[in-house]
Amino acid sequence: MHHIDEDNITGAVIARHTAAGDARVRELMTSLVQHLHGFARDIKLSEAEWAEGLRFLNECGELRSDQRDEFQLLSDTLGLSTLVTALNQRRPPGCTESTPAGPLHAAGPPLGSQGGDDCHVRGRVRALDGTPIAGAQVQIGQADADGSCSVSYPGGSLSGADGRFQLKARLAGPCTIARDGPVGRLLRALGRHSWRPAHLHFMVSAAGWRPLVTQVFRRGDPYLESDAAFGARRSLVADWVRHGPGRAPDGGTSLAPFYTLDFDFVLDKA
Amino acid sequence: MHHIDEDNITGAVIARHTAAGDARVRELMTSLVQHLHGFARDIKLSEAEWAEGLRFLNECGELRSDQRDEFQLLSDTLGLSTLVTALNQRRPPGCTESTPAGPLHAAGPPLGSQGGDDCHVRGRVRALDGTPIAGAQVQIGQADADGSCSVSYPGGSLSGADGRFQLKARLAGPCTIARDGPVGRLLRALGRHSWRPAHLHFMVSAAGWRPLVTQVFRRGDPYLESDAAFGARRSLVADWVRHGPGRAPDGGTSLAPFYTLDFDFVLDKA
Repeated sequence: MHHIDEDNITGAVIARHTAAGDARVRELMTSLVQHLHGFARDIKLSEAEWAEGLRFLNECGELRSDQRDEFQLLSDTLGLSTLVTALNQRRPPGCTESTPAGPLHAAGPPLGSQGGDDCHVRGRVRALDGTPIAGAQVQIGQADADGSCSVSYPGGSLSGADGRFQLKARLAGPCTIARDGPVGRLLRALGRHSWRPAHLHFMVSAAGWRPLVTQVFRRGDPYLESDAAFGARRSLVADWVRHGPGRAPDGGTSLAPFYTLDFDFVLDKA
Repeated sequence: MHHIDEDNITGAVIARHTAAGDARVRELMTSLVQHLHGFARDIKLSEAEWAEGLRFLNECGELRSDQRDEFQLLSDTLGLSTLVTALNQRRPPGCTESTPAGPLHAAGPPLGSQGGDDCHVRGRVRALDGTPIAGAQVQIGQADADGSCSVSYPGGSLSGADGRFQLKARLAGPCTIARDGPVGRLLRALGRHSWRPAHLHFMVSAAGWRPLVTQVFRRGDPYLESDAAFGARRSLVADWVRHGPGRAPDGGTSLAPFYTLDFDFVLDKA
């Protein structure tokens, strides 16, 4: 019987995986064990820290509900979600960049029922060479009006023959991810805030084109450089233009000030 | 505003941790993010695999109860518990090796109420140079008689002036870690079984000496080479000797066959 110590335990675990039925599962778990052990070894994880880590993971899982996914929040705030999206959503330069889908897709109230100024979103869905993409479905989502980042996708629009779409949302402000759980505690311990810059979520799909999940951010937002979820990036920042009361882009007359956001979505072939 | 991509996201996350109030927290999270991202990058984690991972973690947390800690089981079966113990419990050669404490410390029924043959455990608590350690508390724990590895620590003994102790337990057999949850599913996907070789748990403590948590394994057990929790090792395997009915080591007369296990615990100075 062999001896087990801190040097050979990693090899001993990996050697057990030779009978895995699926080669990808074996590859995944081999890499996971190597990195997990590498982490513990590099920082000489203490027994108390290890126990605290297990408590943290259990606390995350115990919070799970229809409205809450603390592990996704953890993934978002540690940049893992952004990395996984980047690894899988490589697109040619000039195509609209993809972002993670955001903290949670919850069924929510229709956009019209939320407070705040109207924000008219308009633009074109097009190919890299400028060709309009007709019949594309553009779904919009935004954070709840309570300032939390829970996302609802209440409405959508189909692009016309010229690729143009138009949607009405509410003006978005900065929102905060849930901070009353273990992830919020972790961010505070790291000296980090839990704010995300003002943004709108979009899902754009059209037959023959690669589906796009992305977010558009408001230029000038104080949290653009420190998005708690690492979604904000240069190519997705746009001007949200304020207009006084008067004729709105949807043809109606607005008695209150309103905003317009112009943004084109450039899709890649499927 | 900078650009975020799969190459610079790791640095972007780590750069946020400069305001951490505690240097160790910063060091831990920096290493964790590097290894977590390294894992995703090395195997090009797909979005579906990432989502499955989040589901797996949530499922582990949702199982948490007084009797169940799926994350500890995960740590045990991936060798992390063994690694952390090895990193923190280095002892001079000749001292008894430490192992992880095992799947779960639950308050359980007294040993005498469990089925199976008696097993008389006896030995000495001593220093490396052979000096007996008197007044050491030796606590014994063993898996429940139902074949699961849940551990109870129902009894103990104090060593005498000559360092000797004697305890009565039940003969242990191989036991299985909980296999009805996500960890059991993972082990099956990896082509691994969920058995641990027959063992007894021990906690030995004495003033002035470093506390010892360990396990003693039964020579000849079919799972010694493939302990699902990576606790078994050469120096902790011992003979459990069978005796016919007659005079037992505790002075009584046994009408049934019984077993003896002789094992010395060699402690390191505190």
